[in-house]
Amino acid sequence: MAIRSLESELPAASLLSFDEMSAHLRAVGEERYHHKHPFHLLMHEGTLSRGQLQAWALNRYYYQSIIPIKDSIILSRGPDPAFRRAWRKRVVDHDGDATSEGGIKRWLKLAEAAGLNADDVSAGKGILPATRFAVNEYLNIVRNRSLLEAVASSLTELFSRDLISLRMEKLRQHYPWLSGGLDYFEARLTQAPEDAQFAINYVYENAQTRAQQELAIQALRDKCDILWAQLDALYFAYVQPGWPPPGAFRLQDAES
Amino acid sequence: MAIRSLESELPAASLLSFDEMSAHLRAVGEERYHHKHPFHLLMHEGTLSRGQLQAWALNRYYYQSIIPIKDSIILSRGPDPAFRRAWRKRVVDHDGDATSEGGIKRWLKLAEAAGLNADDVSAGKGILPATRFAVNEYLNIVRNRSLLEAVASSLTELFSRDLISLRMEKLRQHYPWLSGGLDYFEARLTQAPEDAQFAINYVYENAQTRAQQELAIQALRDKCDILWAQLDALYFAYVQPGWPPPGAFRLQDAES
Repeated sequence: MAIRSLESELPAASLLSFDEMSAHLRAVGEERYHHKHPFHLLMHEGTLSRGQLQAWALNRYYYQSIIPIKDSIILSRGPDPAFRRAWRKRVVDHDGDATSEGGIKRWLKLAEAAGLNADDVSAGKGILPATRFAVNEYLNIVRNRSLLEAVASSLTELFSRDLISLRMEKLRQHYPWLSGGLDYFEARLTQAPEDAQFAINYVYENAQTRAQQELAIQALRDKCDILWAQLDALYFAYVQPGWPPPGAFRLQDAES
Repeated sequence: MAIRSLESELPAASLLSFDEMSAHLRAVGEERYHHKHPFHLLMHEGTLSRGQLQAWALNRYYYQSIIPIKDSIILSRGPDPAFRRAWRKRVVDHDGDATSEGGIKRWLKLAEAAGLNADDVSAGKGILPATRFAVNEYLNIVRNRSLLEAVASSLTELFSRDLISLRMEKLRQHYPWLSGGLDYFEARLTQAPEDAQFAINYVYENAQTRAQQELAIQALRDKCDILWAQLDALYFAYVQPGWPPPGAFRLQDAES
């Protein structure tokens, strides 16, 4: 139905060139990527408390923890061995191997640097229900939509390098007690652009109609919404008005 | 894993009686049901604007629209014809039949009474991403957990009659321009308690261990979180601080 309605709206629309498609994807990022979210703005201004950064590290861990699961779902849907060989790098990047501890472990180190207990974080103790709902939607997307859209939903990695560079600088400047926990971001500075390059090439080569290109762009929009909603929930629960839902992590736990 | 950890925590725990189980379920409602959510408190105090009530009616429509889908999933998982005969009443209640327009149509009448266009509402134009994520999690639960837990997740209906009675009184008092759109709630005053009675009996009869009873209670807790998160998202976007995410319904659309 989505395809039909797009086709009927774009009867004479022709296939976007690689540069045109890149421009459309970047426009989505400009509008919807979470670099503009007020929670990140406060983080970069240095006005978040240790408790608020703990809430962020705790909730974001749930997102980190499902990344290799969503990439394994994509692996399971890729019929081509060459595609799977390329994509499995992502699972290794997050789960680690004999030579590297992996992104999940690195995020736990960040959570520990923030003053949290790694076992509590791994267990998801006190994470916001809204975090689970948003993150689980990422799994729904890679399970239920086409492989093209599943791959396209990873394209927020086109924008992550700039945000991570800025974040590392600001975290070191304003929250020096976190500086020992930034290995995760350091690794992503090179991993994310490599992954984004592969994914954008894949999307361009495999979207064979304008309608498919539009579905890929929509998948990126939806993925941006998933990242944005996680910060909305943090802001609402822990910044203002400060009403975490029943059962969630509370700031006084951290501040006391 | 969930069952095993509950069993190890409750080695000597015995099966709850019907009254004990009911008390546990009611305690969950007391703590987590959305009757205490600040958005509802403002609604009942009469301080919400027409635009804020429009945002509520629009977003809640998405929840209403998936109810017969989630009940159809439960139907599809029920091996017993007698169970399916009883459960399909719910699909009829929401989708309607020759003699009744059904709950979805009634909710659209409420949205129209609030000043929205029914076609825009049906199309989900401008709903919050966080609404979709929370509501889709309800579908995840009824698809992926046991049938017992899927049934138990409906038990918020144990608490809905009191909230709906209060809401109808307060809507008529504070927002008389909505009074023509309250048929949905009128119907739920009798439907919900009948459905809750069937479901609580089913859960009691089919939870054969204390661990299963605990899983059923957890499903109700998770369902309460789904309702709560929807109001959190409305409050954050439209009450305070008032930052709807990119692409969502904006209050100035309604107030102008």
